[in-house]
Amino acid sequence: MDLNAYITNVPDFPKEGIQFKDITPLIGDAEAFRFAINEMAAFARAKEADVIVGPDARGFIFGTPVAYALNLGFVPVRKPGKLPRETLEKTYDLEYGTNTLAIHKTEIKPGQKVVIADDLLATGGTIEATVELIEALGAHVVGCVFLIELDFLEGRKKLKSIPIKTLLHY
Amino acid sequence: MDLNAYITNVPDFPKEGIQFKDITPLIGDAEAFRFAINEMAAFARAKEADVIVGPDARGFIFGTPVAYALNLGFVPVRKPGKLPRETLEKTYDLEYGTNTLAIHKTEIKPGQKVVIADDLLATGGTIEATVELIEALGAHVVGCVFLIELDFLEGRKKLKSIPIKTLLHY
Repeated sequence: MDLNAYITNVPDFPKEGIQFKDITPLIGDAEAFRFAINEMAAFARAKEADVIVGPDARGFIFGTPVAYALNLGFVPVRKPGKLPRETLEKTYDLEYGTNTLAIHKTEIKPGQKVVIADDLLATGGTIEATVELIEALGAHVVGCVFLIELDFLEGRKKLKSIPIKTLLHY
Repeated sequence: MDLNAYITNVPDFPKEGIQFKDITPLIGDAEAFRFAINEMAAFARAKEADVIVGPDARGFIFGTPVAYALNLGFVPVRKPGKLPRETLEKTYDLEYGTNTLAIHKTEIKPGQKVVIADDLLATGGTIEATVELIEALGAHVVGCVFLIELDFLEGRKKLKSIPIKTLLHY
């Protein structure tokens, strides 16, 4: 299935010069969405994932159906202040300024095999921070799966030897 | 299955006096998560939904697996500035101040039957605004499904005659 047909290129969003890849036509189409989730789930199954992790908010769109399809649980990574119990936090650099992500300390168990799902691998900062949070809790990231990868940003370099599956490259 | 066993009550979050219902233990547990999604999907199937809509961000956690389970598409409702194409917006009152939600104009088709999925029905402001956006696009909200309903806030009064299914009442 040609998923590319379901991605809309929106020029100059959210700011001038950026070609935004709008994924909403894909998730709005039953067949394309199902195909994408099944491809992602096949990767997570092959990696023998125990649990799926996804970053707020678009990681939820892919991570929770993948978890459901594989009969696994899902653990969210969110901005500070959103998760109500004790969290581990990680701050990382953005192009301008910094961002911080948080995960509940008790939701990932030491030794678990984790697959991270998200819509987009761009510079890789979000995913690198997510990997560090998971590994700080004693679990192992056995794979990362993305709908889209922006190859020219070379985000996969930040993920070193972690296996990566991407459905669409730009 | 007793889903209540997977909800953690967190006192004074996000502010003093609020008893926050933490759903992360439920979504982190494969069986409880699967049970909840299957119950929600059964409701949406009975309502003959054509598409599932969910508000950012926790509506994504329930709405996208329900869409996947029923082989339907999913349409997100988000804050302004997050959706890249032309949107319809709705502003509604909160306890202090206002909130605005947006939906892409072309993703819901006139005449479609829509089920809205979210984690929580509290005062009902978010869901009422979501219903108004969907109906302004000419579609019909044939049901709303929630993991949790805070009965004492009487949010369902705002939804008038729309059928509601809730898995857990507090």
